[in-house]
Amino acid sequence: MIVEEQLAQLLFGVSQSLPEGELRKKLESGKKLKIKLGMDPTSPDLHLGHAVVLTKMKQFQDLGHEVIFLIGDFTARIGDPTGRSKTRPPLTQQAIEANMKTYFEQVGKILDPNKIIVRYNSEWLSTLNAADIIHLCAQVTLARLTEREDFAQRITSHQPIGVHELLYPLMQGYDSVALEADVELGGTDQTFNLLMGRFLQEQYGQPAQVVITTPLLEGLDGVNKMSKSLGNAIGIAEAAPQAFGKLMSMSDQLMWRYFHILLGVAEHELSVWQERVAAGTTHPMELKKQMAHEVISKFWSEHEADEAQQQFEDLFQKKDYSKAQEVVLPDSTAASLWVVDLLKILGALSSSSEAKRLIDAGAVHIDSESVTDFKATITWRSGMTIKVGKHRIYKIQ
Amino acid sequence: MIVEEQLAQLLFGVSQSLPEGELRKKLESGKKLKIKLGMDPTSPDLHLGHAVVLTKMKQFQDLGHEVIFLIGDFTARIGDPTGRSKTRPPLTQQAIEANMKTYFEQVGKILDPNKIIVRYNSEWLSTLNAADIIHLCAQVTLARLTEREDFAQRITSHQPIGVHELLYPLMQGYDSVALEADVELGGTDQTFNLLMGRFLQEQYGQPAQVVITTPLLEGLDGVNKMSKSLGNAIGIAEAAPQAFGKLMSMSDQLMWRYFHILLGVAEHELSVWQERVAAGTTHPMELKKQMAHEVISKFWSEHEADEAQQQFEDLFQKKDYSKAQEVVLPDSTAASLWVVDLLKILGALSSSSEAKRLIDAGAVHIDSESVTDFKATITWRSGMTIKVGKHRIYKIQ
Repeated sequence: MIVEEQLAQLLFGVSQSLPEGELRKKLESGKKLKIKLGMDPTSPDLHLGHAVVLTKMKQFQDLGHEVIFLIGDFTARIGDPTGRSKTRPPLTQQAIEANMKTYFEQVGKILDPNKIIVRYNSEWLSTLNAADIIHLCAQVTLARLTEREDFAQRITSHQPIGVHELLYPLMQGYDSVALEADVELGGTDQTFNLLMGRFLQEQYGQPAQVVITTPLLEGLDGVNKMSKSLGNAIGIAEAAPQAFGKLMSMSDQLMWRYFHILLGVAEHELSVWQERVAAGTTHPMELKKQMAHEVISKFWSEHEADEAQQQFEDLFQKKDYSKAQEVVLPDSTAASLWVVDLLKILGALSSSSEAKRLIDAGAVHIDSESVTDFKATITWRSGMTIKVGKHRIYKIQ
Repeated sequence: MIVEEQLAQLLFGVSQSLPEGELRKKLESGKKLKIKLGMDPTSPDLHLGHAVVLTKMKQFQDLGHEVIFLIGDFTARIGDPTGRSKTRPPLTQQAIEANMKTYFEQVGKILDPNKIIVRYNSEWLSTLNAADIIHLCAQVTLARLTEREDFAQRITSHQPIGVHELLYPLMQGYDSVALEADVELGGTDQTFNLLMGRFLQEQYGQPAQVVITTPLLEGLDGVNKMSKSLGNAIGIAEAAPQAFGKLMSMSDQLMWRYFHILLGVAEHELSVWQERVAAGTTHPMELKKQMAHEVISKFWSEHEADEAQQQFEDLFQKKDYSKAQEVVLPDSTAASLWVVDLLKILGALSSSSEAKRLIDAGAVHIDSESVTDFKATITWRSGMTIKVGKHRIYKIQ
């Protein structure tokens, strides 16, 4: 593939490639490039939001470059020393390794797991001494750091910023120095941190990395960035029929974003489809099924996509509940249990907040009866059907 | 001495003792207290401005407490890694040791040098790793740090602050943790840093130090804090006659401050004296001679004070220049040299900026003739008299 074609592929669908023209130069050098992707080891569950940037990593991998997953284990092991943040408890080495195992099983669905390089930033950060850190900090002014959007917002709204938090973007940037990265990928919300890596490489006398950002995929609510903790995510490790059902549950408006961001359909093509929908010549349900099938084909397999679509049509279009996904409850399951625990065992959702949202919306049905009490206790039996949202049905075996 | 008397002595003349009542408790414990005084090893020359706080250290020493001189060698050896600050070039271990030798020779004029403990903060700061520093930084918010006056001013005036500069007050505070200091002394301009030490001790689960600040002594210009680099200082290592002459050259207004801060004369007593001067019953020159004599007696010796006063009276009151301080120029001195170099060799001043100020003011005379050209070259000879300001006369031997 000539450089022109490589560029067209690599830049397709990205938000920014900074600075302009720099990626071309790196590709023209003919060198095997080091492509860095940072990874927070506290949350190993991959979802379709991650698939955007992983797909881009895959393209670099296929072009023969060295893709490096940089695990930010150093700060994860420290956690938040103030104890203020519940989302940052310190992780043990063991927990990190377990998380990484889960993570790379999922990554392997998109990239070739045999051609992945994994590095842990504790390798170099734990060896820095006080003098090294003073040198690192001396490269950057406070004004530059507090340009970062979240810092700026917290200063404006008088929310406290721990001085240690200022060190994190510097250390994350220093990872690029340690790796001598040529390219760093990340979501658009990482732009500041990625540019810091580039800046620090320059300060340490290295060629500076190209910064490539990918758009953030909205979750099923169509509003927030996809995130497991917000309960709006489709996990890469979920069963294909469930993922298919979730994809089918999204709004028509959001469907266009998924076509564009996940499947790379160009906007001018989408305009044509949107006109057809507006004119009534195409039914949006058909397009949504096409989107769901293509997404499952791409990130699971075509075979699973076919099966999932078949099951969806049987269940929701022909209303044949005998085709519902059968679930065997573990032996340890109590005869009666909290509805939310039952939903979690079924794998219908991952968080209590998602459960509350769905129950409050009257979107959870047991044997066709709506569950409206978030605190309800359920006595389950074989053959019981549980419907969650419009497009997820489970049958207890 | 009962605690009440100790307190009266220790708190006499200080600006603040924080928190109120805490020093009493520490004294009542009967424990031998650790008294910390921080010291910047880049400027070893002590002047009368330092004498204020050293006198306070001496009082603690005489009461049997452990006085600790904390040498900030760690950051001095790093210097300013940005290279932006000319006043913070990195110092070698050798240079620091040489500076400290000079420093303690001078300290020995005020404190008992055999009962001084000297610690270097590189002992502990150089052993901190990245995790330790993150923990340290996590104790403090950015908002708290930027309350420090110089940071606040630089933020307001959009002057850059290097992120490493934020670490320095934290490390300086951590010195109190490492020393387990009970009391820290410093000038009022150090209040923020001293309180940071107290705060960090609390965060690290230690009893917190009492913070005692002493007033800043104005230099001979009567405006700025005494400082060698501003050329308004009287060095503790200077010859007594020269120091006497400098003291006599100050304004009447400033004289009261020296009586109060250096000699501990209470303000109500000064009021009485001021009234007598206003009424014309006491000549300010007589009071100034008394102040100069007492200062030289206190920080040099009574014998040197007597001699210096005698010489002053001979020279400036009886105009008997034969009593001028005779100076032997080193053999290496060129036959003709820049006036400023000559003044430096004579020990009349320490900086070119001070020389410029005096020459511009027409205050330098050679053989009764005023030197008005800052760039003048002088051909010296034996017997030549050089008068600097009103009250310093040198005769070349």
